[in-house]
Amino acid sequence: MNRARLRAAVLLLFVSSATTAGQSGAPPAAVMGFAPERAATQREREARFDASVATADLRGWVQRMTARPHHLGSPYGRANAEFMAELFRSWGFETRLEEFQVLFPTPITRVVELVAPTTYRASLSEPPLKEDATSALVGEQLPVYTAYSIDGDVTAEVVYVNWGVPADYEELERRGIDVKGKIVLARYGGSWRGIKPKAAAERGAVGCLIYSDPREDGYVHGDPYPTGGWRSDRSAQRGSVMDMPIHPGDPLTPGVGATADAKRPAFTEADTLTKIPVLPIAAADALPILKALGGPMAPPAWRGALPLPYRLGPGPAKVHLKVAFDWKLVPAVNVVARMRGAELPEQWVVRGNHHDAWVFGAADPVSGMAAVLAEARALGELASTGWRPRRTIVYAGWDGEEQGLLGSTEWAEYHAADLRAKAVAYINSDSNSRGFLDVGGSHSLERFVNETAGSVRDPVKGMSVGARMLSRLVIDGSPTERALARDRRHFELDPLGSGSDYTPFLQHLGVPSLNVGFGGEGDYGQYHSIYDSFDHYTRFMDPDFAYGRTLAQFAGRLVMRLADADVLPFEFTRSAAAIAKYAGEVRELADTLRGEAAERARRLDDGVYDAVARPGAIVRPPKPLDAVPFLEFAPLQNAVNRLEAAATAFEAAAAARPGGAAGLPAAARAEVDALLMQCDRALVDERGLPGRPWFRNQVYAPGLYTGYGVKTLPAVREAIEQRQWREAGTQIANVAATIEDYAARIDRVAARLK
Amino acid sequence: MNRARLRAAVLLLFVSSATTAGQSGAPPAAVMGFAPERAATQREREARFDASVATADLRGWVQRMTARPHHLGSPYGRANAEFMAELFRSWGFETRLEEFQVLFPTPITRVVELVAPTTYRASLSEPPLKEDATSALVGEQLPVYTAYSIDGDVTAEVVYVNWGVPADYEELERRGIDVKGKIVLARYGGSWRGIKPKAAAERGAVGCLIYSDPREDGYVHGDPYPTGGWRSDRSAQRGSVMDMPIHPGDPLTPGVGATADAKRPAFTEADTLTKIPVLPIAAADALPILKALGGPMAPPAWRGALPLPYRLGPGPAKVHLKVAFDWKLVPAVNVVARMRGAELPEQWVVRGNHHDAWVFGAADPVSGMAAVLAEARALGELASTGWRPRRTIVYAGWDGEEQGLLGSTEWAEYHAADLRAKAVAYINSDSNSRGFLDVGGSHSLERFVNETAGSVRDPVKGMSVGARMLSRLVIDGSPTERALARDRRHFELDPLGSGSDYTPFLQHLGVPSLNVGFGGEGDYGQYHSIYDSFDHYTRFMDPDFAYGRTLAQFAGRLVMRLADADVLPFEFTRSAAAIAKYAGEVRELADTLRGEAAERARRLDDGVYDAVARPGAIVRPPKPLDAVPFLEFAPLQNAVNRLEAAATAFEAAAAARPGGAAGLPAAARAEVDALLMQCDRALVDERGLPGRPWFRNQVYAPGLYTGYGVKTLPAVREAIEQRQWREAGTQIANVAATIEDYAARIDRVAARLK
Repeated sequence: MNRARLRAAVLLLFVSSATTAGQSGAPPAAVMGFAPERAATQREREARFDASVATADLRGWVQRMTARPHHLGSPYGRANAEFMAELFRSWGFETRLEEFQVLFPTPITRVVELVAPTTYRASLSEPPLKEDATSALVGEQLPVYTAYSIDGDVTAEVVYVNWGVPADYEELERRGIDVKGKIVLARYGGSWRGIKPKAAAERGAVGCLIYSDPREDGYVHGDPYPTGGWRSDRSAQRGSVMDMPIHPGDPLTPGVGATADAKRPAFTEADTLTKIPVLPIAAADALPILKALGGPMAPPAWRGALPLPYRLGPGPAKVHLKVAFDWKLVPAVNVVARMRGAELPEQWVVRGNHHDAWVFGAADPVSGMAAVLAEARALGELASTGWRPRRTIVYAGWDGEEQGLLGSTEWAEYHAADLRAKAVAYINSDSNSRGFLDVGGSHSLERFVNETAGSVRDPVKGMSVGARMLSRLVIDGSPTERALARDRRHFELDPLGSGSDYTPFLQHLGVPSLNVGFGGEGDYGQYHSIYDSFDHYTRFMDPDFAYGRTLAQFAGRLVMRLADADVLPFEFTRSAAAIAKYAGEVRELADTLRGEAAERARRLDDGVYDAVARPGAIVRPPKPLDAVPFLEFAPLQNAVNRLEAAATAFEAAAAARPGGAAGLPAAARAEVDALLMQCDRALVDERGLPGRPWFRNQVYAPGLYTGYGVKTLPAVREAIEQRQWREAGTQIANVAATIEDYAARIDRVAARLK
Repeated sequence: MNRARLRAAVLLLFVSSATTAGQSGAPPAAVMGFAPERAATQREREARFDASVATADLRGWVQRMTARPHHLGSPYGRANAEFMAELFRSWGFETRLEEFQVLFPTPITRVVELVAPTTYRASLSEPPLKEDATSALVGEQLPVYTAYSIDGDVTAEVVYVNWGVPADYEELERRGIDVKGKIVLARYGGSWRGIKPKAAAERGAVGCLIYSDPREDGYVHGDPYPTGGWRSDRSAQRGSVMDMPIHPGDPLTPGVGATADAKRPAFTEADTLTKIPVLPIAAADALPILKALGGPMAPPAWRGALPLPYRLGPGPAKVHLKVAFDWKLVPAVNVVARMRGAELPEQWVVRGNHHDAWVFGAADPVSGMAAVLAEARALGELASTGWRPRRTIVYAGWDGEEQGLLGSTEWAEYHAADLRAKAVAYINSDSNSRGFLDVGGSHSLERFVNETAGSVRDPVKGMSVGARMLSRLVIDGSPTERALARDRRHFELDPLGSGSDYTPFLQHLGVPSLNVGFGGEGDYGQYHSIYDSFDHYTRFMDPDFAYGRTLAQFAGRLVMRLADADVLPFEFTRSAAAIAKYAGEVRELADTLRGEAAERARRLDDGVYDAVARPGAIVRPPKPLDAVPFLEFAPLQNAVNRLEAAATAFEAAAAARPGGAAGLPAAARAEVDALLMQCDRALVDERGLPGRPWFRNQVYAPGLYTGYGVKTLPAVREAIEQRQWREAGTQIANVAATIEDYAARIDRVAARLK
């Protein structure tokens, strides 16, 4: 077949598969990776699995695990780990608690006080509410603070910096405002919180306050808790501010497991602590400071929803910020439960969720953790009837996720060699509520995810969760997304940045990963607050745990199908499409920046900024931008072409065989599996990303200045964004080589299929 | 010359003229309409004119005229009229007070009270402030109310309706909320205020409250008055709610002057009164009502800046609204001052601004009125040195603008025959502050306006006001606007809807009109409040009256050049360009609606709305839209083509003659003037717009459901918007005929030039 015919054939196959996995309600005939004669058995097993997932279990586990604070290092955190371990064991899993010793500072002193022009001492506390039973358990609660802030005691004028991301400082500079020697007041949102003190410190600020503006998750969205589910002005967001885009995990043991005997520097040597002291505050604590700010009005997009004119300062508001921490090591207690594969025990399907919370954490993380338990229980029931998975299934409950993915990272680092050799995929969840399927991850699993989403029923809508997602894309999606949804009944996976425990697997080790959950219809104004509680969850998030059950059914299918497939259900046309899209984006980014630099130069020459500036208001013209050279993108374009060809050839080879790859003899299938497992590993470059060697994946990374937000083709994209033109050229070549390697591995699988 | 060469020649002429009128600072050689040998004299005269405009005069007049409330029918309103008349006379103008008897209801009873679930009685008053001297003069102030609300006494549940425009009711309907029998609470903005009770009454609402949300002109923009210039929560916006898109002017005498002996029906028969009672309220008075609303959350775009979740209701908030008015006739006292033309006394250049205010009206209208006085004074000084304009200049101070353009409309209706025969142009202003030139109007004057704007110096920026405007378009303009600004040093005129006294001239009589002013850099949060005062104006609007002087210099040049030009400075390539653009827009609108109807039908068929809807939240699918036929646009396209050809031919004919048309002998120039004056009259169709015969201009009209906002090619555009496909076809043909007539008139001028 010539290439055009190959494509047409593949497309037909693809459409047909996606359609059967779609809306009809009748059970689809095919299951990706399964020989036709085994697909029906699998479907039947899934029906039994579904029946074993009970919302009463979910409710019970969530209530039990959120009864007391259970953060990293807490007594109840360990109790939860032991409770879960007992459950896993009772369901037939080989279960261990795997502990690491991690740095975890907790506060000794916390002071935020306005000292001029008026005075106000911030409460830094969230009051108990009679409508929220656990809120009164104040004894064990972690107070309102941000972990991995350094100790500090500073008094300085305040500058309001919006989100506190680099672009915001350009706006401040145009207004003649320098944060050197100042305390910045940033609002939550616009980036991961850890970026805010990082960007502030880079510009000489001496302290950082981060507050929750009601525009983000407060009364703008609905009634504040406890009347409604949204954040009240007394609710604050705890969180980590470690420099996670450099590396997550224990700050003292980057790259290796934080075992008791690991080599550790003094904590002050850790490279992911902040450079300045930081505290988060509630809106009620921010209000007096914002009111006391003078200076020019903040740009319109910077204005939040508090009833006042948002001004930039600096001052006259002056704040005293003092924090001191107990810099101790604590155990991070991971729960790891295995069900050994009957046929391919050295192929592992890993499924995890963290179990630690900032305080009670009903949504984050227990709603997700409970789904994991429900899956394990249902698999245990299947096992009790004689079933055994072909591959090994590993269930994990991670500790210390909130501080910086500590438990998962240390475990992945410690077991790196095994995981590189054996991990088929890692499937993560974190929080869950009613709403839409939300799934991101490795695009080699995109078609598999689509098919699986088409087989799980939304608990409210009488259609599959995949079909509901497609409907949403018809209404809210980009033109491309809408066309895919309509014409192919297909949705794309979001690429993953960071913010949960998939990061060590995907971005450090190159294990194909997914992050799954439901959401968008909970009233979630309690992120990292004491009010993320059982009471809140059962009123505003997923009152009947229907979507908890759906998550277990969806993620459970992913696990079972990956574990039992005759051949692993990877395919690469969607990877190739995604990478082609990202390659197009970085080329377009360079063109956009080139046009922007030329336009700005022209405007500066013509004096239009000065002409337009409001007299008396100090808004300086922006600085000139260095001209953008044309970059040599050809290697990347060629690599993408080769990848597309390889992906198409692989599909055609599979399609040419009756029953697809699953129709091969067992020995051949094992060989194909082994090759397939290693395809996405090619995306890892052992040298890592520029300046942050821990992050090795060349397609997916969190942004250096977004923190959670993904940067695809990060080495190239960030070099361009940071205007490092020579580095961009180097990285284009590097990334092209990585993609060529990826294509070569796919070619090898295709060759084996012929 | 063939057509392509004609175009090239015209373009060269155009660019060269625009450039010389541009940035250089050196006085441009040419002045449109003036023979080259007379242009230098004109420039010199303008320099003397400029020197006669004194900011001290402006300050004095504004302070004097805003010392007491001076609304329609008030003693101080008459005193101001007499004061101005005396000034005009002292400067050598033949001056009369021309009075009309107009319906003007003022309140006897005003009650807004929340009666459930809590109680609150709205203050409906703006408190005196020690920082604002005139605010304490409460005796003569018109209270907070809206004129031409009917009397009423209703008690009903409240529904929050956002702006209260038709699209908002579609959103409410999707949420199952009907305003029948309810009182609607709308926020200011999104349309002219009179649309809000109109749209509400059409849906069965029994009352309407309109409040000032701080998002629009309050603390979101800066400190509230008196600390800053923005609207405080106690400041309310008075205004007219007559059904002005049907016709402005005295409700009892549509189409004819409201003389003492005019025939009048009972006031209850007037067709522009509201159908339901209305009151405006301040944010502080709206807050308890908004807080008491239940029901679903308002859509995100509907949420204002008050610190609460915006809910839709209906209820439980229940309000008692009671209003009763004294429905009396009062005199509207226009001041009309003439300087008779020495050569062409039957050609009138009319320049006006209203003098009545809602209360003190320092910005609206006295800032603009004072500029008119300054112009007249400067012309008087020129006249005292022996100069006389070639054409007659008419200066007017209108009364009763605030109630619905009463003074100007009655005057224009009364003098309709004279104006049709004699009016060269009408130049309006209204309010003024520091900032950018803001000018809209007839596109046959667009090039003239550009040239004039290039000759007036911005008081702060050391460049012409035109050049500053062009800089702004480079930064904020559409791609077309940016290209015009850069490549041709040219800006477009905004088409005029309504909202000030140009309406009877432009839209009833077809007199080419301009609306001019400066703005955008005042902190204008006091529109129609008692705090639009001398104290506010001199702190936050134009403290040194520098932009008042600039307005006088700019509008004064427009008047002088129109009055003294050897040939009237009309040209039509920009009219043709504007009309071609509008014709393209209405075609595109039909295409857009066709696509939207098809897309909605498909979504309804596919059930995506139901699939996406949040369970439990009542958001119904939108209703199906009737399919959109292809409309016969060819007549309009052909007419536009003919107009473009005529405009080009006219320009070429003028360019072919040394000195342009101004080089003709005097008798021929008078003939050309007579033809030019009548060109734009062609845009008036005596049958008027469908359903509103008073509005006759087929290119420019206020929208039936925007109120102030313009609808170009209104008969066609509104038929399409209202999905009256057959009517749209009829109107396309009608409008095409009007444009053909316009082109024919331009052809006649071109023929005379040859």
